[in-house]
Amino acid sequence: MALVTLADIRAAAGLIAPAVVRTPLLRFDDRLSLKPENLQPVGAFKIRGAYHALARLSDERRARGVVAYSSGNHAQAVAFAAHAFGVPAVIVVPENAPAIKIAATRAWGAEVVLVPMARRESRAHELVEERGATLIPPFDHPDVIAGQGTVGLEVVEDSPSVDVVLVPVSGGGLISGVAAAVKALRPAARVVGVEPEVAADAAESLRAGRLVRWPAADRERTSADGLRAEPSELTFAHVRALVDDIVTVTEEEIGEAVRQLARRSRLVAEPSGAVAVAAYLAREDWPARTVAVVSGGNVDPAAYLRLLAG
Amino acid sequence: MALVTLADIRAAAGLIAPAVVRTPLLRFDDRLSLKPENLQPVGAFKIRGAYHALARLSDERRARGVVAYSSGNHAQAVAFAAHAFGVPAVIVVPENAPAIKIAATRAWGAEVVLVPMARRESRAHELVEERGATLIPPFDHPDVIAGQGTVGLEVVEDSPSVDVVLVPVSGGGLISGVAAAVKALRPAARVVGVEPEVAADAAESLRAGRLVRWPAADRERTSADGLRAEPSELTFAHVRALVDDIVTVTEEEIGEAVRQLARRSRLVAEPSGAVAVAAYLAREDWPARTVAVVSGGNVDPAAYLRLLAG
Repeated sequence: MALVTLADIRAAAGLIAPAVVRTPLLRFDDRLSLKPENLQPVGAFKIRGAYHALARLSDERRARGVVAYSSGNHAQAVAFAAHAFGVPAVIVVPENAPAIKIAATRAWGAEVVLVPMARRESRAHELVEERGATLIPPFDHPDVIAGQGTVGLEVVEDSPSVDVVLVPVSGGGLISGVAAAVKALRPAARVVGVEPEVAADAAESLRAGRLVRWPAADRERTSADGLRAEPSELTFAHVRALVDDIVTVTEEEIGEAVRQLARRSRLVAEPSGAVAVAAYLAREDWPARTVAVVSGGNVDPAAYLRLLAG
Repeated sequence: MALVTLADIRAAAGLIAPAVVRTPLLRFDDRLSLKPENLQPVGAFKIRGAYHALARLSDERRARGVVAYSSGNHAQAVAFAAHAFGVPAVIVVPENAPAIKIAATRAWGAEVVLVPMARRESRAHELVEERGATLIPPFDHPDVIAGQGTVGLEVVEDSPSVDVVLVPVSGGGLISGVAAAVKALRPAARVVGVEPEVAADAAESLRAGRLVRWPAADRERTSADGLRAEPSELTFAHVRALVDDIVTVTEEEIGEAVRQLARRSRLVAEPSGAVAVAAYLAREDWPARTVAVVSGGNVDPAAYLRLLAG
């Protein structure tokens, strides 16, 4: 299976520059720096892949609009990107999605179609058929992976002698792109994925050398609601080829990382966005130049208050 | 009185680059962008002026150490800068300062001297005499003002057609430097200071055309504990010459801005750091390219929880 290349990621960096924040590395302590992707428009790295996927469509195809199914950060990212390009977006959202996320998606001018959870994917494909629109998948696409890979490109630009890059893992789009960039530019650096202990299907898959599926009900136990997806064949091919290890963190460690990010780095992180920092805090033997990707900061205000109160 | 020039500020930018984060502008909404100085090391813009002041000392003089009196962000900034240069720092702190701030200052290797509040300034001057060290004032010095001015330089670099820059005002070091840079690079832009309504001595001074003093007990009514100082002759000379207006915000507006910054921009801001955003939110007629400086994010965790709970 063809993997995303450094050239793909460099090309993506040029295409997404108008819409994406060039996030700086922020010092957390003597060894750790943060890549604060929670500061992106829509509050997550997802804007990189979504915007890049739209940028790569022909003008004609893009004008017919895009479709996504998601209740999370990907929905907002596609809505934002479609708004930036001035093309229609339809987001298929499960009926039980939080009102705040639906409102955020509508705020970017997207049409929101509410369906029962089980109908999400099929309704999205129907809309693609009906409208001649293009489906923008959350991670299972080379253009999305190349867009997310610009995170890795920037990490090595800003920290050329980086030793370890810690990256949250869910569907695997972010770590696939980051690993493709980092391993090409600095082969000596380790790329380490981080998963919640209660949603550690990718960690188990990497050890097994094949995709191991966990029941959705198991993966949904984690508070890190952005890390409940599972890798695809395409992202797992990147993980097997390029990722050194996937480690896990407990729910308590995730909560502590959210608090530390607020207190020490003045960043609002969602639980999913804090797992890489949680992995750093949980062990003492990380090398001198470690970078953790803080992948997102979209958290319900009441839930965030509870997390901060510890 | 000689004002800080664009050339001074450009020179400062070169000197502080190794220690300071090149903060990006972050979109808040269609009209407002944020300059997130809460993401600096030590959590505030103060590092720019303090590091620059140390960088400008001769090697010999710097080696004899530096002294500051402050219980706030300036103390930590001087401690951080001294640590970066490998020179001793003594910070004179009032006995009633929060333990968390004393610990943060000590964490950078500074010596902390606790004295009664009224002895702060005189004890600092004694230490300068005893040790041959150099006093680094929080705002009343051209090198400090030039360092803070790099905020304005970066704002215009990143938003060349900016219409308005909103800047918190306390002792006036930040707005003096920002105004010197912005007015030199883009004379059409307005530079507007923001003060708490209950500590609006600089606003009254600007209207009166002379420094009007407010009793400390009045200024201390604001929750924005970083905005209780008053301008010096030097900073007020900059304000009179270069600042278009100073507006005020209520304590309620400050709290709401702290909450909006967390929810919409994923930034932890202290009340002092949020006043420019509060001024933006309080009026609807700001022009299309407005920038608000989020000046700091050092807030006690329990106080922050209360602010978020609203």
